[in-house]
Amino acid sequence: MAGKKLRVGLIGHRFMGKAHSNAWRQVGHFFPLKREVEMHTICGRDPQAVEEARKSLGWNNASTNWKTVVNSPEIDAVDITTPNDSHAEIAIEAAKAGKHVLCEKPLGMDVAECKEMLNAAKKARIVHMVCHNYRRIPAIAHAKKMIEEGAIGKIYHYHARYAQDWIVDPDFPLVWRMKKGVSGSGAHGDINAHIIDLGRYLVGEFKEVCGLMPTFIKQRPIPDMSGKGDGLGAKSQKKKMGKVTVDDASLFIGRFKNGAVANLEATRFALGRKNHISIEINGSKGSLSFDFEDMNRLKFFDNTAPEDRQGFNDILITQQGGVHPFVGQWWPPGHIIGYEHTFVHTLADFVNAVGKRKSIQPTFEDGVKNQRVLEAVEESAKSRQWVKV
Amino acid sequence: MAGKKLRVGLIGHRFMGKAHSNAWRQVGHFFPLKREVEMHTICGRDPQAVEEARKSLGWNNASTNWKTVVNSPEIDAVDITTPNDSHAEIAIEAAKAGKHVLCEKPLGMDVAECKEMLNAAKKARIVHMVCHNYRRIPAIAHAKKMIEEGAIGKIYHYHARYAQDWIVDPDFPLVWRMKKGVSGSGAHGDINAHIIDLGRYLVGEFKEVCGLMPTFIKQRPIPDMSGKGDGLGAKSQKKKMGKVTVDDASLFIGRFKNGAVANLEATRFALGRKNHISIEINGSKGSLSFDFEDMNRLKFFDNTAPEDRQGFNDILITQQGGVHPFVGQWWPPGHIIGYEHTFVHTLADFVNAVGKRKSIQPTFEDGVKNQRVLEAVEESAKSRQWVKV
Amino acid sequence: MAGKKLRVGLIGHRFMGKAHSNAWRQVGHFFPLKREVEMHTICGRDPQAVEEARKSLGWNNASTNWKTVVNSPEIDAVDITTPNDSHAEIAIEAAKAGKHVLCEKPLGMDVAECKEMLNAAKKARIVHMVCHNYRRIPAIAHAKKMIEEGAIGKIYHYHARYAQDWIVDPDFPLVWRMKKGVSGSGAHGDINAHIIDLGRYLVGEFKEVCGLMPTFIKQRPIPDMSGKGDGLGAKSQKKKMGKVTVDDASLFIGRFKNGAVANLEATRFALGRKNHISIEINGSKGSLSFDFEDMNRLKFFDNTAPEDRQGFNDILITQQGGVHPFVGQWWPPGHIIGYEHTFVHTLADFVNAVGKRKSIQPTFEDGVKNQRVLEAVEESAKSRQWVKV
Amino acid sequence: MAGKKLRVGLIGHRFMGKAHSNAWRQVGHFFPLKREVEMHTICGRDPQAVEEARKSLGWNNASTNWKTVVNSPEIDAVDITTPNDSHAEIAIEAAKAGKHVLCEKPLGMDVAECKEMLNAAKKARIVHMVCHNYRRIPAIAHAKKMIEEGAIGKIYHYHARYAQDWIVDPDFPLVWRMKKGVSGSGAHGDINAHIIDLGRYLVGEFKEVCGLMPTFIKQRPIPDMSGKGDGLGAKSQKKKMGKVTVDDASLFIGRFKNGAVANLEATRFALGRKNHISIEINGSKGSLSFDFEDMNRLKFFDNTAPEDRQGFNDILITQQGGVHPFVGQWWPPGHIIGYEHTFVHTLADFVNAVGKRKSIQPTFEDGVKNQRVLEAVEESAKSRQWVKV
Repeated sequence: MAGKKLRVGLIGHRFMGKAHSNAWRQVGHFFPLKREVEMHTICGRDPQAVEEARKSLGWNNASTNWKTVVNSPEIDAVDITTPNDSHAEIAIEAAKAGKHVLCEKPLGMDVAECKEMLNAAKKARIVHMVCHNYRRIPAIAHAKKMIEEGAIGKIYHYHARYAQDWIVDPDFPLVWRMKKGVSGSGAHGDINAHIIDLGRYLVGEFKEVCGLMPTFIKQRPIPDMSGKGDGLGAKSQKKKMGKVTVDDASLFIGRFKNGAVANLEATRFALGRKNHISIEINGSKGSLSFDFEDMNRLKFFDNTAPEDRQGFNDILITQQGGVHPFVGQWWPPGHIIGYEHTFVHTLADFVNAVGKRKSIQPTFEDGVKNQRVLEAVEESAKSRQWVKV
Repeated sequence: MAGKKLRVGLIGHRFMGKAHSNAWRQVGHFFPLKREVEMHTICGRDPQAVEEARKSLGWNNASTNWKTVVNSPEIDAVDITTPNDSHAEIAIEAAKAGKHVLCEKPLGMDVAECKEMLNAAKKARIVHMVCHNYRRIPAIAHAKKMIEEGAIGKIYHYHARYAQDWIVDPDFPLVWRMKKGVSGSGAHGDINAHIIDLGRYLVGEFKEVCGLMPTFIKQRPIPDMSGKGDGLGAKSQKKKMGKVTVDDASLFIGRFKNGAVANLEATRFALGRKNHISIEINGSKGSLSFDFEDMNRLKFFDNTAPEDRQGFNDILITQQGGVHPFVGQWWPPGHIIGYEHTFVHTLADFVNAVGKRKSIQPTFEDGVKNQRVLEAVEESAKSRQWVKV
Repeated sequence: MAGKKLRVGLIGHRFMGKAHSNAWRQVGHFFPLKREVEMHTICGRDPQAVEEARKSLGWNNASTNWKTVVNSPEIDAVDITTPNDSHAEIAIEAAKAGKHVLCEKPLGMDVAECKEMLNAAKKARIVHMVCHNYRRIPAIAHAKKMIEEGAIGKIYHYHARYAQDWIVDPDFPLVWRMKKGVSGSGAHGDINAHIIDLGRYLVGEFKEVCGLMPTFIKQRPIPDMSGKGDGLGAKSQKKKMGKVTVDDASLFIGRFKNGAVANLEATRFALGRKNHISIEINGSKGSLSFDFEDMNRLKFFDNTAPEDRQGFNDILITQQGGVHPFVGQWWPPGHIIGYEHTFVHTLADFVNAVGKRKSIQPTFEDGVKNQRVLEAVEESAKSRQWVKV
Repeated sequence: MAGKKLRVGLIGHRFMGKAHSNAWRQVGHFFPLKREVEMHTICGRDPQAVEEARKSLGWNNASTNWKTVVNSPEIDAVDITTPNDSHAEIAIEAAKAGKHVLCEKPLGMDVAECKEMLNAAKKARIVHMVCHNYRRIPAIAHAKKMIEEGAIGKIYHYHARYAQDWIVDPDFPLVWRMKKGVSGSGAHGDINAHIIDLGRYLVGEFKEVCGLMPTFIKQRPIPDMSGKGDGLGAKSQKKKMGKVTVDDASLFIGRFKNGAVANLEATRFALGRKNHISIEINGSKGSLSFDFEDMNRLKFFDNTAPEDRQGFNDILITQQGGVHPFVGQWWPPGHIIGYEHTFVHTLADFVNAVGKRKSIQPTFEDGVKNQRVLEAVEESAKSRQWVKV
């Protein structure tokens, strides 16, 4: 570790705050960093909750005022994990204050907001990054490398499904993630955003889309809590009902600019699928297949292999200590890593980009482009038309 | 075996003719039949080829004139496995002659043709069946039973993909399956037809669809052969190019009348996927998952099970000798069966329906309905609009 | 099909008789044969049962006297599928009569008996074959080819398990397979024999073994039936108990002559495993892995591949129509075949060996060698010593 | 977190030191602890290496003298991760000094040594634990609970294989793990020890064993380094050869006291298997199956389920946040965890046992018993006899 410390302020301390905090604690122990990380301040609205988070998550200070944090001369970088409707305001103020910004996805509530964020970041010449951590699943990073090497040739199909099941129960309460005003959308912005980003990363830019965004359960019990809580696992006792204003699932077909066709589906209504991301990419020379529930593996079909030895090759990514930029930092071959490690990889690259003052993907520009696809699908679902991205 | 013989005439002797012949030979050895089967006549255009087929496939007679066969007083039932553009003419003439008809899918070239076929069949009061043999994959039949028993509750998602890879090579020749005039469509009518039928069987009737039917390789070498050959595996030496007039892939999203949403994709451009059908159905109580490359299994997630024992249950269908209508006829538990057996199951039900003079699903009416969905998707792909089925 | 007919007599009509009959019916329709097969006579003790078998299994004649059959001038080859204690007598008499013999495994009750059979066969210069049909599972045949090509190098480990679960219920009756006098042994000769044969086929000759053959349920209800019936699925109502005189499981460790080590386990007490054969072979250059419940696949790890593309390659055997001697005879790539097809492959090779009057593996000599291993394990289990094969 | 701090001294800083350090850093952030952890001192021989380890692994102090550490009044608990030949000396001195001790497996070099360690621990009334971290893989802990609940009934089979491939290359150097004097044994004590422990944990005590411990490569290049290094991944340039004095693989069959039979195999010669642990346990009511490369799943076959819904149930352990003692502390359902988390679970239980001054499994007594099995197998492999445990 070299250079002066990177003093981090984390805004938000719920689920994503916990995941990011863990990654901030761990990154320096496993990855060579251009700047040493100081976990300076964690910030949240509720004084008691944020103080508890400070202690359990390992931050030096707690604050209830994000404006103070992002403007503090003791802070070098701001990490934003608050609900979606507050990303823009915080990120823009942080950028204006000259802080480097890592922001959870989706970047903003709409393209206009995202553009403002990008402009602010560009103007301030900060390092800006959207936390699409799944780009840094080792198997996905390896897929990217293989595609760039031409391993599967020209791409014809991108077929992806992100399936969860946490709200199939009609008694599951109306938490913030089901309110359009706070979250922007439902499964669409929450999880389709991830596989859209992976499509852009692995295949290319989307050209046009046609989507469908059903809401299967239209009324849900209003929870006791403020409505800002995460609500994962919460079940309401009250039966006062409210309207679900977001999608339960979001599926669309489309075309990429390079001619490949897209089929994406995100849903919170697939019982048994807890956090299931299955991706298949078919090209002129081979295919790649990935399943997040088996995230340490990447399946590769090589059509150039001898006919009697062809098959989907089950590449155990954790065996590649010697050749893979991420897995070599962890454990010996065959010792698997998990979900949380993707955040550590993301932070390592963010910190080193700051250290070198170089851009690091996915930038806010990726955030803007991702939002464009999200909006095109929403518009298409509303207008029942194909929409250009 | 009881009653008088059922004398069968088979029209067509290529790939499907081979598969049907095998099933005609086998069915009486494994299934109790209401009428004993006599493999009376096989019919094809080329005298030498059909005589060879007669010998190798086990038929008593060979003919080059299908009109003679379907009108022969020695024939009770006609089985049609010719290219798609000839189904209607043969089936209608057979029906008029009072023969029971089993017809390969897709039933006809368009809805109008299919309706004519249905009307002819109804008027003649014959037993009529479309050979959607995948309904009688034991795991699919079991899925149907479980859905009817309410095992997965109200259905939200039908997600299906039928992927093959036999024409990824741009040098693969322009065989009849790539000519719209003969085959009607490409992957769409050939394999999307199967998963559309399974959707209708397992979930319900389609309401509206929006599709995309890309042709990735627009020109292909014209083969030496007549163009009526099956062309599987054939590679052209000649390089005179012709235009591909059908789709290479067909994908669509849609809604069922019961509120479930549909996502179907059929492609001949997924390297490594030889005959891969993956289906997932998610409901309010559970999910079912199936993969044709693992066709002796059905995966079932039961959300009503105790929380700490929930998981996708990998039901080995071949273990159900005692309770399953098909697998009990074959081998002891755990001894797997294959692709060809689905035809035997289909024929067993067809023969017994004839024996009882009862209707047997899927009827020509199913063929009409299947064609309506196929056409709606095609219209949608052309007009770039949602289309009501 | 060339030459004169091969007139077959089948002795035995229970489970294995059904499987062999199916293969005799099918073989000529799928494989080019040096001699046309005539299904001349099926033989069994019970006149009514054998006549029913004749009809349902497709034989021309039925007989209750095996001596007549094996001595008949109208019979060219004898196929033996009776209980194990009668193999030797029938095979020797058939050999003396100059008939070619295919015999179910295990060849005889002990090494002495097997040797007599071999000697009789040699003396008569007949074609003799033991029906170790699993050698002709396409994936196993492909594994053999790959090993011979050096794909996995020098072999270090042969690890195999054959697991079933049909007698876990203590009320399952004392059928012939649990009586030493009739069957010779339990899981040992019935299913360990298969993976011993595959070990000999794929790895080499065994050198020494040390085994354990537990009987978990020592008393079982005596069934109503004669005790000669197959008893699969039978449940006794009577509770008169008898002693189980064979092993419920048989496991052993050992060494091959070439230095590889062996670990084999056969059991009828593994709930959920219906007919599960899992095999792994590890060598100096790679590994092969196979699971019979997924019999159309072979997994191959190639240590000579580039490090970042290494993994178990899931070879879908049915895709190899162009290059595989068995699968090319059946259906297009990806259309799976099942258990029964292994018998067809076996018969095809048997018939063609007879046609060419050439030896075909596995011969009775393989039967003798297999029996030597079986006996060495039994002796070891009894003496609690290592035993040389 | 309550009570006074638990000040920890870690002896050893190589691979296991890294894994333990990570767990010490993480445990307080995820698990409620009876005593707050202070990472007081890390200890190693090489001053520079240990100081680097101190910084990168997060310890407050570094020391090169383990005696000072274990006797320091500032240390409450000692964690031992040194090579096997030093465990006893350190643990006994720590116990004498009244420190609680967590010791890596195998506990000692032989039963006598292990007993001395146990006696010292008992005499000092300290909390003592062997780091068999695989007991706290969530799926294994869940298997234990299910077995105790009677889910699989009386156990018949324990079949386990632990396979790695890191020394298949004959040029891999003669590191300390291949020298009997330092490591005690090869694959046997290193990895067979793990599946022996899991057998004792899940099934019961071993009664008798018969084993085989081959050394496939008998000479290897002597490495440049001291020979105490971990050597994972190291390749020697020098070709001075030395004798391998430990086993490359260790396999044995045996009986448990409760009548179940055992089949265990550990090997470093299974190419493609990086850290593969496959376990199957078959009982009178069901079966459990586990694969460490898929460690977030447990497969359960329930023979009491309705016949047409039976199958291996693929329980995704990470979905059990609400009911599982370990997984609930990490991420939402479906977000997988990895190898390192098993150490965190182990430390959480150790710290809380110290806080409550209660015994915690696996104790040094388990270490003794594990060693007894290890020695019995070694004796058996040497004497070529069955050996009582």
